[in-house]
Amino acid sequence: MNSSGEIRLVPLRGIPEVMPGQNLPAHLAAAIRDAGLGCRSGDVLVVTQKIVSKAEGRLVVLSSVDPSPFAVELGVRLSKDPRQMEVILQETRRIVRMDHGVMICETHHGFICANAGVDLSNAGGPGVAALLPRDPDASAATIRAGLKTHLGVAPAVVITDTWGRPWRDGIVNVAIGVAGMRPLLRYAGQQDPHGYELHASVVAVADELAAAAELAMGKLLAVPAVLVRGYDYPRGRGSGRSLLRAPRRDLFR
Amino acid sequence: MNSSGEIRLVPLRGIPEVMPGQNLPAHLAAAIRDAGLGCRSGDVLVVTQKIVSKAEGRLVVLSSVDPSPFAVELGVRLSKDPRQMEVILQETRRIVRMDHGVMICETHHGFICANAGVDLSNAGGPGVAALLPRDPDASAATIRAGLKTHLGVAPAVVITDTWGRPWRDGIVNVAIGVAGMRPLLRYAGQQDPHGYELHASVVAVADELAAAAELAMGKLLAVPAVLVRGYDYPRGRGSGRSLLRAPRRDLFR
Repeated sequence: MNSSGEIRLVPLRGIPEVMPGQNLPAHLAAAIRDAGLGCRSGDVLVVTQKIVSKAEGRLVVLSSVDPSPFAVELGVRLSKDPRQMEVILQETRRIVRMDHGVMICETHHGFICANAGVDLSNAGGPGVAALLPRDPDASAATIRAGLKTHLGVAPAVVITDTWGRPWRDGIVNVAIGVAGMRPLLRYAGQQDPHGYELHASVVAVADELAAAAELAMGKLLAVPAVLVRGYDYPRGRGSGRSLLRAPRRDLFR
Repeated sequence: MNSSGEIRLVPLRGIPEVMPGQNLPAHLAAAIRDAGLGCRSGDVLVVTQKIVSKAEGRLVVLSSVDPSPFAVELGVRLSKDPRQMEVILQETRRIVRMDHGVMICETHHGFICANAGVDLSNAGGPGVAALLPRDPDASAATIRAGLKTHLGVAPAVVITDTWGRPWRDGIVNVAIGVAGMRPLLRYAGQQDPHGYELHASVVAVADELAAAAELAMGKLLAVPAVLVRGYDYPRGRGSGRSLLRAPRRDLFR
């Protein structure tokens, strides 16, 4: 952290449309270089899942999908393309809620989000669905290792997606994969300035980093990555899955 | 927004312990001046509710509380001080869930959060509970007007608190009151770079601003306010209550 404690959110521009199999870390490294900031191990690179999914070929052309009878049924009920519903079902291990034209799914990773994270916008063209990365932590680790190769420095990496949530309107950007940092900051056993023990304070800083970065991305700006400088992130090995609340402690599954 | 699109999160230090009735806007204006940044109408000042609640006298000394039989019962069930439970009940209009030692409440404002937002940490000493501001939008508007008086400029203002959420571990900072901005950014009718209409995209940017600011606050740093510079926030009149999902569209109440 710099002396003032200021944090900078720097959007990385000029990253080309990424095609399956292309070297995403090389593109990200070039964008960091072009931003003229260098790269530091204390930086956090926040990358939206859409560009990761594209590079990893996690795209489905809907015209190639043969929907099951249940997917056809869901399509009618929810007024959606049955082929899209089929793709969603294949990404789903449990349907959490299904009502008001919305399907809230638990993905094979354990994430709970609308449509199992399957998204038609920004997926590279009409009729193409983007899936979440198969293993977002591994995606983050690959990017981190690639940056180390290209830039000689390995910042922390956070992969994100924008999801809705209960009770509150609007979507927010959240972390689905991390590398080189712990996503939760635990204050357990520490005391606030009044000596009151902060026994319940565990802050999901990876989600806050994701949210912060989204402000510098914007959906229409097509900025897929943001460099966060000046945030003293929790060092250590971490996984996006540690952001998942254990089912036995979750009152809203 | 500056030409690079960079966003800065500047923690405001040196704000004294605020006592009930003190002029919080004057303290915030002084801290902005001390940071040497000036203030711009395009800035967003993010302020944690704790300092707002203190300035507004929203504090309860637990020794003055006479718990009802139900509060005593809850205290036994949840292993908590019955006087604390009484304060929580007085802030609650509906108990959403009550299990695993946790009470999720709907406050009189309509917010859904643990313990109706009643908090013992950082409340000014042991045995003191801080309540949420009675009208966080009004609190934000008062701060905004005070900054206009002291600095000649009125930035947007966001009042925040850190809350848990279903499905995901850890707390994150969210917006409970706003002034001078709209908390939701609607992409309805706009198109992504591929021409796909973003019909479902409403981003809760006030919550993302809250989350971003928390990174520069930190619980132990005792930084109650952060100036966000460079974010092109949605102009217009807004209310933190527009972040509340309508009950009929909420599958998890």
